[in-house]
Amino acid sequence: MASRTATDLVHPDRTQLRFTTVLAALSDPVRLAIVARLADVEPDGELACTTFALPVSKSTQSGHFKILREAGVIRQRDEGIRRLNRLRRDDLDAHFPGLLDLAIPQGRDVIANWDSKAR
Amino acid sequence: MASRTATDLVHPDRTQLRFTTVLAALSDPVRLAIVARLADVEPDGELACTTFALPVSKSTQSGHFKILREAGVIRQRDEGIRRLNRLRRDDLDAHFPGLLDLAIPQGRDVIANWDSKAR
Repeated sequence: MASRTATDLVHPDRTQLRFTTVLAALSDPVRLAIVARLADVEPDGELACTTFALPVSKSTQSGHFKILREAGVIRQRDEGIRRLNRLRRDDLDAHFPGLLDLAIPQGRDVIANWDSKAR
Repeated sequence: MASRTATDLVHPDRTQLRFTTVLAALSDPVRLAIVARLADVEPDGELACTTFALPVSKSTQSGHFKILREAGVIRQRDEGIRRLNRLRRDDLDAHFPGLLDLAIPQGRDVIANWDSKAR
């Protein structure tokens, strides 16, 4: 992979969040699962991309994180070789109150369903 | 057009509504505008497809209505040559409380933006 710098990570400003883009970002079970995992470490927690144990390939996973970041759902930053993720709770709640609180239990259901199949 | 019967109009049961499908249905400005127009005639009002004056072709419009219906956002029924639409407010509020109330103002913004460009 080419060297990554912080400037690679494009984030929309709070004022640039668009409802249709955020809904599209949340309309996928893998992305809902990512959101639910990040909600578990709020408000200050960050999780590295490598810790999510998602049932998709690494490149598919990267695509999901990118969609969430570019929609403004998550904030990403690089720390050494790790890419850390956190929910943009404040920004989302300010623009679309209640939306994250609908999405998080849906993501938990997705994870529970994966876990039950893995057992 | 081939004859249409009520059986052509597939609607998911309330128990079949899926969050990801509903979000995908709402993640489009034209569909948000349809939802906002239908919200204006709640709780008992229905609007014919031909009354929406959407800035898209008739076939594109039909596709948008179909996506909303198959996601469970609207209910459609045929009355003579008209296809009537209504919001599935009760079902959506029961499953995803607050989601419609986020979507409706967004749809109103879309319509206001179209109107301002048309003037």
